[in-house]
Amino acid sequence: MTADGRPTLSRRALLVGGGLAGAGVAAAAALPGTGGAAPVDGTATGAVPFHGTHQQGIATPEQARLVFASFDVTGDRTALADLLGAWTAAAERLAAGQSLPGVADGFAPPADTGEALDLPASRLTITVGYGPGLFDDRFGLAGRRPAALVELPAFPGDALDPARSGGDLCVQACADDPQVAFHAVHALARMALGTAALRWMQLGFGRTAAPGAGATTPRNLLGFKDGTDNLVTTDAGALAAHVWVDDRSDQAWMTGGSYLVARRIRTHVEAWDRSTLGDQEATIGRVKTTGAPLGRRSERDPVELAAVDSSGVPRIPLDAHIRVAAPATNNGAALLRRGYSFADGVDPATGELDCGLFFICFQKDPTVQFIPIQQRLAHSDALSHYLLHTGSAVFACPPGTAPGRPWGYGLF
Amino acid sequence: MTADGRPTLSRRALLVGGGLAGAGVAAAAALPGTGGAAPVDGTATGAVPFHGTHQQGIATPEQARLVFASFDVTGDRTALADLLGAWTAAAERLAAGQSLPGVADGFAPPADTGEALDLPASRLTITVGYGPGLFDDRFGLAGRRPAALVELPAFPGDALDPARSGGDLCVQACADDPQVAFHAVHALARMALGTAALRWMQLGFGRTAAPGAGATTPRNLLGFKDGTDNLVTTDAGALAAHVWVDDRSDQAWMTGGSYLVARRIRTHVEAWDRSTLGDQEATIGRVKTTGAPLGRRSERDPVELAAVDSSGVPRIPLDAHIRVAAPATNNGAALLRRGYSFADGVDPATGELDCGLFFICFQKDPTVQFIPIQQRLAHSDALSHYLLHTGSAVFACPPGTAPGRPWGYGLF
Repeated sequence: MTADGRPTLSRRALLVGGGLAGAGVAAAAALPGTGGAAPVDGTATGAVPFHGTHQQGIATPEQARLVFASFDVTGDRTALADLLGAWTAAAERLAAGQSLPGVADGFAPPADTGEALDLPASRLTITVGYGPGLFDDRFGLAGRRPAALVELPAFPGDALDPARSGGDLCVQACADDPQVAFHAVHALARMALGTAALRWMQLGFGRTAAPGAGATTPRNLLGFKDGTDNLVTTDAGALAAHVWVDDRSDQAWMTGGSYLVARRIRTHVEAWDRSTLGDQEATIGRVKTTGAPLGRRSERDPVELAAVDSSGVPRIPLDAHIRVAAPATNNGAALLRRGYSFADGVDPATGELDCGLFFICFQKDPTVQFIPIQQRLAHSDALSHYLLHTGSAVFACPPGTAPGRPWGYGLF
Repeated sequence: MTADGRPTLSRRALLVGGGLAGAGVAAAAALPGTGGAAPVDGTATGAVPFHGTHQQGIATPEQARLVFASFDVTGDRTALADLLGAWTAAAERLAAGQSLPGVADGFAPPADTGEALDLPASRLTITVGYGPGLFDDRFGLAGRRPAALVELPAFPGDALDPARSGGDLCVQACADDPQVAFHAVHALARMALGTAALRWMQLGFGRTAAPGAGATTPRNLLGFKDGTDNLVTTDAGALAAHVWVDDRSDQAWMTGGSYLVARRIRTHVEAWDRSTLGDQEATIGRVKTTGAPLGRRSERDPVELAAVDSSGVPRIPLDAHIRVAAPATNNGAALLRRGYSFADGVDPATGELDCGLFFICFQKDPTVQFIPIQQRLAHSDALSHYLLHTGSAVFACPPGTAPGRPWGYGLF
């Protein structure tokens, strides 16, 4: 059933038949080609259009669930180019709420793994990015490396796990149903056999409101609203200024793309939970219940960094997170944040929750946006005492696709 | 906002004020007591009634998300009894969509951690169980141990991780929003400081339909419908026969309770994905698309284990999962299954997905239900070739609570 209660047939239509199998041998299931399936045009219920100037999953209103995967490329240049083309075609179908096509007789593996068969498109978006490693000497792409795609430097306090960091390719799958997002990564990983191997995967949840759209701002696992002053995804001017790579890029193939930085930020909730409400609010710079800047009434009240109380003390403390992270204190640099909370069980070393924020941000150039902002935060943000960065990666996300212009276009 | 679009005020009403804070010091927030909050009566939007003959989260229609936690008790008998009483009071509020009460001035930690402040009750249920270890010599409870609460034996093929197994107490939190379920476990774990420590935690997702309710049967990560022949939670006779402990139990305090067995079952999806559709269907005994028993047309068609094809070959293979697991081949033993899919990233040892089914079942007596069924499955089920049991636990879930009859009632 779809979100509005109507049955969804597009996935089922691709894997009909069956039901005729005897012991150990399933009957051949006559599979229609694309002619028999719903059109791949983004019009299926709950589907986000796939092709476009920019990739979806960046300025797209944030879905409720995330499955993020990083891959190491093990194949050669040709295999990589073929994979990116095949991924594009598959992602277009998945985003439309369709299964992967293919002959599905009983004597071959099913073309589609099937766990999303009865589920609607669920606003699935699949966003692909290229890590710095893709531009080393393995694939002949060194000359295509953009200057902005640098390995992130070490930041003070980093505790990065190599098994949760880096990668040659990323796939960010976001959907309103976690099984749909998982299915997308599962399907692409299966197609990559022999060409790219999963390096790490991270699930996220709970960011259930679209920043800036007037909906309730979601809360992070510290209990605070998170994203109030994020870039507004409907503000084309802000996106052009801060997010989209323009034609002044040194690499023409990145025009219309964006750079993704992912940081797995574990939050020490046990220590945070023991701090006082006053300390928590001073650390963030906002009121916990309302999200208002300290000294103001409402969440959307402007953050006035110069405001002082009657004693002349700044209302927003000098080390408050919202001050240290603000564009006004970072030479105007802003990020489009698109993170998800995670909870990965218990840290066996400490018995504490291994939970926090899988921070994702998009930007025009990480060398003048994420990197200097994070250097400042790591040194000066009061919140950093409660955080541990355990994973890190950076990817160049190419522009959107079009028929005949798949992922990888302009690279090879 | 609630599921039906109306604003939810019950959590917010508990943590008002704020917004007056200066640098580093938040204003005291006047907190109403329970008199100022919504009544704890299960009538809040999306709330499941808390008190009752049986605990919720067993026969309750399955919610979309799971956070399951296991605890080791580190305190003494008195602390344990106090904790169970405090957990009961807290769980009642959380199930009603309310925050935890308490004085919340700026100079104390907030009573509620806050990440669910703007979220509705989301059908949250919190189910508590006692592991066999609770009845050792630490708490003077050896005489209260039911005969049915035995440590599970080792099964062939088990690959159990101690860090994902066992525990003195369990909390199963299910809700339609993962952040609400996480908040519940977070809140109870925080209250347990000094008395019980988190041992392990498991998140699950994707079982979005209620078994037997006429809704679409959810699919597992093998791509098959899972739960078609599960016990129907509205069938009081079946629950009385198979799920609820009755007054013939050797321990009166367990009357109305049930036994929970949890198994973290990793599925080798990479191997499964390479098997043919015919093999997959023969392994399960059902058609992948429709869920129909092999040789039949519809999911709800009866499973006729004696049916043979024109050559006399059984239509449901002798080692098919649905045959080996069927009550008819297990002396009539049946389980109420209530599992959730999980995806915990990539196994660094193999590069394969660490995903599968967090299997949870409820029953009247595991010594005649789960244990013999699993012994049979481990030896004879074709599906077992694709599975790896990596976690295991058993808990006695006491009956439902009532005012003056909290968890722990009858134990101390």
